[in-house]
Amino acid sequence: MKIETLQDAYIHELSDIYSAEKQLIKALPKMAKAATDPKLAKAFDDHLGETEIQAERLERVAELCEFKLKREKCDAMAGLIEEGRQIIQEVEEGPVRDAMLIAAAQKVEHYEIASYGCLVALSAKLGFPQAAKILDKTLSEEKATDEKLNMLAERSINDRAMRQAAE
Amino acid sequence: MKIETLQDAYIHELSDIYSAEKQLIKALPKMAKAATDPKLAKAFDDHLGETEIQAERLERVAELCEFKLKREKCDAMAGLIEEGRQIIQEVEEGPVRDAMLIAAAQKVEHYEIASYGCLVALSAKLGFPQAAKILDKTLSEEKATDEKLNMLAERSINDRAMRQAAE
Repeated sequence: MKIETLQDAYIHELSDIYSAEKQLIKALPKMAKAATDPKLAKAFDDHLGETEIQAERLERVAELCEFKLKREKCDAMAGLIEEGRQIIQEVEEGPVRDAMLIAAAQKVEHYEIASYGCLVALSAKLGFPQAAKILDKTLSEEKATDEKLNMLAERSINDRAMRQAAE
Repeated sequence: MKIETLQDAYIHELSDIYSAEKQLIKALPKMAKAATDPKLAKAFDDHLGETEIQAERLERVAELCEFKLKREKCDAMAGLIEEGRQIIQEVEEGPVRDAMLIAAAQKVEHYEIASYGCLVALSAKLGFPQAAKILDKTLSEEKATDEKLNMLAERSINDRAMRQAAE
């Protein structure tokens, strides 16, 4: 795809995060299964449902703005998910693995926060106010998920991980 | 490296972001060179200086906490930098490329915000208050860089990119 205008860049960015969401839909069940803490497993499960809706929203935005999403692979999300995969492979079940899964998931959320932040700004600039509103909803959800993961780490999982060696 | 305790996880995370900073030190001069807007080129150049100091801080933290950083490759940063490389390769010089370079750089900043946020929390938890203070300084710088890039996009570059097709 040749990128010459800001709208081309917008479609590229939408397609990139669409690929990212699709990759995440495959990765989240594995992260939920790998989590020991039931609250963390539930957080990953809940976020799977949200992520499916977020991917659909991207399809809706493309429809609204009358263009097609491109087939692209988001390399950054592939790298982020690879980090999660390595944690599952290399760290035994328990609170230390949980703490690391949270860190990996927060990096994923921050990728999405940066991407949707940019997309909301571009939607407004390009005169797609409805798209801006839809994408801003996703942006708020990603920020809320990041905050929820933070709370889980700070309120229980990091303390349990501290005690893991002693147990 | 076998990860069994929260301190192992902390060393792993420090080594990961150390690899990320080192990769970024190589990538930033290319991003500065690829930028058309002189303010954007300067922002990348300034951030290169900061990034070099941030990498040194990680060495200092490892010294303070009396452990060695591991040789690890941060796959996520490799993916993020690959996105920047593709933009430079595929998009011609000008404000649209600049807008896309900003988006790519903000994703990098958000990766670092997530990573340093986690590291500050773990430093405190593990009883390394001086490390927490040092890493929190870097965290503030990454947030400031993200904000600066936001301002550049919102105040001038996105508008110029909007007009690019018409010129």
